Amino acid sequence: MHPHDVITSASNPHVKRLVRLRSRRDREREGLILIEGARELRRAALAGVRLQAVYLCPELYSPEARQVVPELPEPVSGPLTGTVTALSRPVFEKVSGRENPDGVLALAAPPELSLAEPGPDAVVLVLHGLEKPGNLGAILRTADAAGASGVIVLGRGADPFGPNVIRASQGSVFSLKVVVWDEPEALAWLRERGFALVACTPDAPRVYWEAPLTGRVAPLLGAEHQGLPADWRQTERSVRIPMADTAGADSLNVATAAALMLYECVRQRLAAGEGRPALAGAPGVSP
Amino acid sequence: MHPHDVITSASNPHVKRLVRLRSRRDREREGLILIEGARELRRAALAGVRLQAVYLCPELYSPEARQVVPELPEPVSGPLTGTVTALSRPVFEKVSGRENPDGVLALAAPPELSLAEPGPDAVVLVLHGLEKPGNLGAILRTADAAGASGVIVLGRGADPFGPNVIRASQGSVFSLKVVVWDEPEALAWLRERGFALVACTPDAPRVYWEAPLTGRVAPLLGAEHQGLPADWRQTERSVRIPMADTAGADSLNVATAAALMLYECVRQRLAAGEGRPALAGAPGVSP
Repeated sequence: MHPHDVITSASNPHVKRLVRLRSRRDREREGLILIEGARELRRAALAGVRLQAVYLCPELYSPEARQVVPELPEPVSGPLTGTVTALSRPVFEKVSGRENPDGVLALAAPPELSLAEPGPDAVVLVLHGLEKPGNLGAILRTADAAGASGVIVLGRGADPFGPNVIRASQGSVFSLKVVVWDEPEALAWLRERGFALVACTPDAPRVYWEAPLTGRVAPLLGAEHQGLPADWRQTERSVRIPMADTAGADSLNVATAAALMLYECVRQRLAAGEGRPALAGAPGVSP
Repeated sequence: MHPHDVITSASNPHVKRLVRLRSRRDREREGLILIEGARELRRAALAGVRLQAVYLCPELYSPEARQVVPELPEPVSGPLTGTVTALSRPVFEKVSGRENPDGVLALAAPPELSLAEPGPDAVVLVLHGLEKPGNLGAILRTADAAGASGVIVLGRGADPFGPNVIRASQGSVFSLKVVVWDEPEALAWLRERGFALVACTPDAPRVYWEAPLTGRVAPLLGAEHQGLPADWRQTERSVRIPMADTAGADSLNVATAAALMLYECVRQRLAAGEGRPALAGAPGVSP
């Protein structure tokens, strides 16, 4: 992949557009996402995301960027797209959202949001009202590692394809199935498929490792401050994460709580299913 | 607590000093730490940290700040200290390290670094070469919630009392016992007290929930990229966190790995010790 042009002026229309696309509203209006970073772009390309324009600054390349750039697919062509453009270092730093940019950035069409039909032991995480992109990204990264089948983001909280979520997820947002749904849509999908809803909430009577978490399970986690709304807390099973007496009520970050729930699902599956074939519909977790 | 003076000029010596103290070297030279935020200051005051100077901006107060400020102890007096000073909003925003400051900031003597003599079931987490303040802070917050007895930070990675660690820990760094030691010191302390060292490393044969983690246990976690050095990987027990085949090797953030290890220790203790009295030397975790 070689750039056709070099842009050295911050007032070039490409540059102005890239700066504008840091805003969610502008990305939604143009129907584009902005992917920065070699690792993130590799994950996106592997997941079949179609790049529309690539911006490179070889002077800033990390070792990973040097390796990834030649392997990236050429951007699809169309009006205003299909270009590979070099940016001078100051210009790249201006459009980058990172402190130490690695010289690789692209615009792409957002991946289609859908969940696969779940296997018999599928774990689908449900997140309610999450606003911090760093937390959402961290959760997606862990869900990917834990072999979750998908993640349902309820309502309009953090944009799953916002640059900070992509970054904090290290690109896992592309390999994982993620959807943004409203509450009735999510409940209908989960109930039709027989998922057990397991709310994670501090007032639940049962500790999370004591609840049965095999079969189709949907752990529910609430926003950073408010937690889950009342009607989502009344699930068949609800669980809490025990905390030391000395620690405050806010002691666990929502991404930490999600990791504990997701890995308890893994633990119970591996403990129950020694020697079983890989789960249908969900990537296998190697014991 | 009421401010004696109001500073409105960014070239005031107090302001210049506060800006300088954002650098670790300057904090170490002056023997001071900088604590920002109402929640963090409350945790620090509860833990007996001696405030030396307090800076307030009532215009910026969050509801929590309005509640906390009247309860803060007066700063101890001495040369250049003992003052409660108001800062104008632009000046406070200049010295603040946050995007949305809550109007409360203080200088204090760093807490003494020490570990308590451990109880029979104590968990002491050992961190090797951690550099990202956000990760260290998140780990301290989880260690506090999980009732760990202490955390040993090996070598000169992230400063446990740096402003970003204090923030990410939400002040847990003050309630938890934290030390910064070199490797021989840490090994000697742990071995003399009969701790089982449990390295968490991707090439270990055993999954973490299959290892016995009761008694005195010291889980070891390595830096974000390099992991643990070879001599620390050869522990009596080493464990790994299983990952989905589809996920990359870097899939788990070190703070996530720490949370899983710490809560597996909690799970095994609570499963083994139903009805036992609270553990000596460690805050109890309520089941």
